[in-house]
Amino acid sequence: MGSDFELLTAKLKRAQLLGSVSELLGWDEQVNLPPDSADQRAEQRSVMAESQHALLCDPEVGQLLARLEKNASILSDDERVVLHWARRDYDRETKLPAEFVREKAAQGSRGYHAWAEARAAADFARYAPVLEKNLELAKREAAYLNFGDRPYDYMIDRHDPGMTASTVSRLFSELREGLVPLVRSITQSAVKGRADRLRGFPVKKQEAFLREVTARIGFDYRRGRLDVSLHPFCSGTGSDVRMTTRFDADNPLDSLFSSIHETGHGLYEQGLPRDQHHTALGQSVGMGVHESQSRLWENQVARSRGFWTFFAPKFREQFPEQLKEISSADLYLAINAVEPTLIRVDADEVTYNLHIVLRFEIEQKLFDGTLAIRDLPAAWNTASEALLGLRPKNDREGVLQDVHWSDGAFGYFPSYCIGNMMAAQLWYHALELRPQLEEDFAAGDFNWLLGWLRTEVHGRGKRFETGPLVEKITGQALSPQYLIRYLKDRYGPLYL
Amino acid sequence: MGSDFELLTAKLKRAQLLGSVSELLGWDEQVNLPPDSADQRAEQRSVMAESQHALLCDPEVGQLLARLEKNASILSDDERVVLHWARRDYDRETKLPAEFVREKAAQGSRGYHAWAEARAAADFARYAPVLEKNLELAKREAAYLNFGDRPYDYMIDRHDPGMTASTVSRLFSELREGLVPLVRSITQSAVKGRADRLRGFPVKKQEAFLREVTARIGFDYRRGRLDVSLHPFCSGTGSDVRMTTRFDADNPLDSLFSSIHETGHGLYEQGLPRDQHHTALGQSVGMGVHESQSRLWENQVARSRGFWTFFAPKFREQFPEQLKEISSADLYLAINAVEPTLIRVDADEVTYNLHIVLRFEIEQKLFDGTLAIRDLPAAWNTASEALLGLRPKNDREGVLQDVHWSDGAFGYFPSYCIGNMMAAQLWYHALELRPQLEEDFAAGDFNWLLGWLRTEVHGRGKRFETGPLVEKITGQALSPQYLIRYLKDRYGPLYL
Repeated sequence: MGSDFELLTAKLKRAQLLGSVSELLGWDEQVNLPPDSADQRAEQRSVMAESQHALLCDPEVGQLLARLEKNASILSDDERVVLHWARRDYDRETKLPAEFVREKAAQGSRGYHAWAEARAAADFARYAPVLEKNLELAKREAAYLNFGDRPYDYMIDRHDPGMTASTVSRLFSELREGLVPLVRSITQSAVKGRADRLRGFPVKKQEAFLREVTARIGFDYRRGRLDVSLHPFCSGTGSDVRMTTRFDADNPLDSLFSSIHETGHGLYEQGLPRDQHHTALGQSVGMGVHESQSRLWENQVARSRGFWTFFAPKFREQFPEQLKEISSADLYLAINAVEPTLIRVDADEVTYNLHIVLRFEIEQKLFDGTLAIRDLPAAWNTASEALLGLRPKNDREGVLQDVHWSDGAFGYFPSYCIGNMMAAQLWYHALELRPQLEEDFAAGDFNWLLGWLRTEVHGRGKRFETGPLVEKITGQALSPQYLIRYLKDRYGPLYL
Repeated sequence: MGSDFELLTAKLKRAQLLGSVSELLGWDEQVNLPPDSADQRAEQRSVMAESQHALLCDPEVGQLLARLEKNASILSDDERVVLHWARRDYDRETKLPAEFVREKAAQGSRGYHAWAEARAAADFARYAPVLEKNLELAKREAAYLNFGDRPYDYMIDRHDPGMTASTVSRLFSELREGLVPLVRSITQSAVKGRADRLRGFPVKKQEAFLREVTARIGFDYRRGRLDVSLHPFCSGTGSDVRMTTRFDADNPLDSLFSSIHETGHGLYEQGLPRDQHHTALGQSVGMGVHESQSRLWENQVARSRGFWTFFAPKFREQFPEQLKEISSADLYLAINAVEPTLIRVDADEVTYNLHIVLRFEIEQKLFDGTLAIRDLPAAWNTASEALLGLRPKNDREGVLQDVHWSDGAFGYFPSYCIGNMMAAQLWYHALELRPQLEEDFAAGDFNWLLGWLRTEVHGRGKRFETGPLVEKITGQALSPQYLIRYLKDRYGPLYL
């Protein structure tokens, strides 16, 4: 048996290495690609995807899986974890007919262009047929993967293994109930955070400062990089984790917090068990858990008073002139500015969750058939008013703002908010174990927190699905109450 | 038939795309790789090489080649070119037994470490067994590829198709005869070029200047990049050509000329017929022709008076303080400094060729058995004295200075000098067609020359081998007389 297991993991390893090369091509495309080389890069990525698919669909993998499953009783627990996820990945690669995969890829590309045009013209009618088609494809895909009776569960499970629409629905309505009144109170408060007073921060110095911050909280630059791209992201695993940011002299907090966010993703990837990146033992659980790591560092940690006790003097040292007129209280308020906006990607951490709730409720209705595509803009605008107190003037500010659905990426949005809930729950549990956490931060020490996350989250790979992982660590099921409590604790004293 | 040809080129295309990804991994390794990620990169490159090898060895390729060859009479000339080189590449991929390829790869890695240690200790005895083994492997490889009776021809032909040791030998002895006295006269001249007076050139400004120069002579930055690496190189083809340089505030001419050199390579790669990079119609001929392009721009063009008529004022504008005390005559002499040195990579363009002649004569004797490995250091030192007038104090300055042989790369050195000869021959032919070429340069206009090279060299892909290409363009066989004439024309007036 040992030998079959080794054969299987050797094959997984080759596929994972090809995948890591594809990921690097994606990074390079965003960071380095000469402007006129997009076609060549598309061809390179397509042949890489074919090669990786061929390895993953190798019939020998199927035979090895079947043999190992027949004798699973003699495998160790870890080996069973590897087998479980290898089977899942194999099924996903093999159960979709080639014709369907081609149709979906072609539709994805058409969909993107239709979305871009519709958005530019603020004309939802052009986009509606794309959404109809994408919804149909999503349902067919779910059916191929044995989720025919609950396609939206399939979409959620793809991003957060084990999560279902009904669980998310329960969590989000509780969250909605707690958040809407909080946002209303903050909006009505006379206090306003003013990040727009931070202007004229030279980019070179911004970069030096955020490299210091990200290295201090634990990003290992011997096993990773930071570069510039149009949209910040993090890619790669293990010894080669690459994150990006963007700079604006008049918006230093944007680069800083997006870098800390990507650092959270990067710490997770750097903390996954080495030499196991080709098996579930060295892979991340899913998007929600990933987001919990980025959000925890970005919000619970980097918006805390302890964090700024340590870093504010360094920030002022780099930018004495720019910060001369800004009091400590105003700086901290700028860091924690709250202002409802129609656009999700511009939202602060309080209102952000309501943008997600809105999208989830709509996706759920699209999948259960209680909302027709043609009624989507009206439904969006009504929900926006109810949740955020803001009504889009046109569909560009509303239903057309996000690219995700153009590519059929349904079930993706909820992960952001699952990550926020999990981050808050981990945070309060960490505080129970180490009440002086903010004092650590005030002394520039982030080791305890990182060490704890390494053990409890990163080091576990994919041994637990999202929900069970939260329960394993905190002793309680995932709950929105911690996020509500955190937002009240953080923003109540500032605004109310 | 059309269909078989299309099937073949479709397969070649996939292999070429994977190859281009591997090349990008190599670039990224030199430019971007986090320090602790070398092992992962080695694994990625190895699995990419396997995948590419599998595509190239696909038995269907063999069947397609055989069918096409049987009916070659109905193919067009261009199709026959494609078929000819596809057969050659296929044979090279399939005729070497897997066991041999593994042995060679392992020996290459061992060889590199043995060389590095021997060089550090200036102890040739440690390196001798590696060379014995590499020589034996080279002979076996030649035999697998049907060159068993003339293994050194095989090594040369690998880098410069169609070239043989006897041709190179004839060219090089003629060159040697013309060059040795010229070098002796220059060395004895009281005039000295002094590049060491150029100090304190800020790197940012150096970069701005060399970007201006390389763009002006024709490098298309929409289809390429310039980055920094330890050793300058150029990689990639077509729409994504990436060159590198390195900067030293006290040696601005090094970055500038190495960038112009890499630009010559890059112009060739950017000028190869688009959409044909997967067939011989869109591939470079070989190393010698490649080097002819880099050398032509670096030397004939960028060391000319015309070139500096245009660029010297811009250079002074960027660096007014640094150049204040340097007269125009001294600047031009610094650009054309000649000083024999023991180390090839430090050599100027006059003496460089003698370093190559030395290596070629030794390789030839190693392969025909008239020189034993153990006698190599003595032979090297004697030749060095005869050719350069300098005798190494130890083997680090002599036979241990180059990495090439540690990896079995015999027959590689001659290409450098073949390129120099070809560059000079192209140059005088270009001058016949357009006598005002230097006046073009003085006006900042490099279009005629680039256009001519695009047509005569780049656009032809691999339709002609090295020798026939030179003859096709200039109407004469490759000859060292143009290089000798060029060096006398350039350096005689300055030094003699």
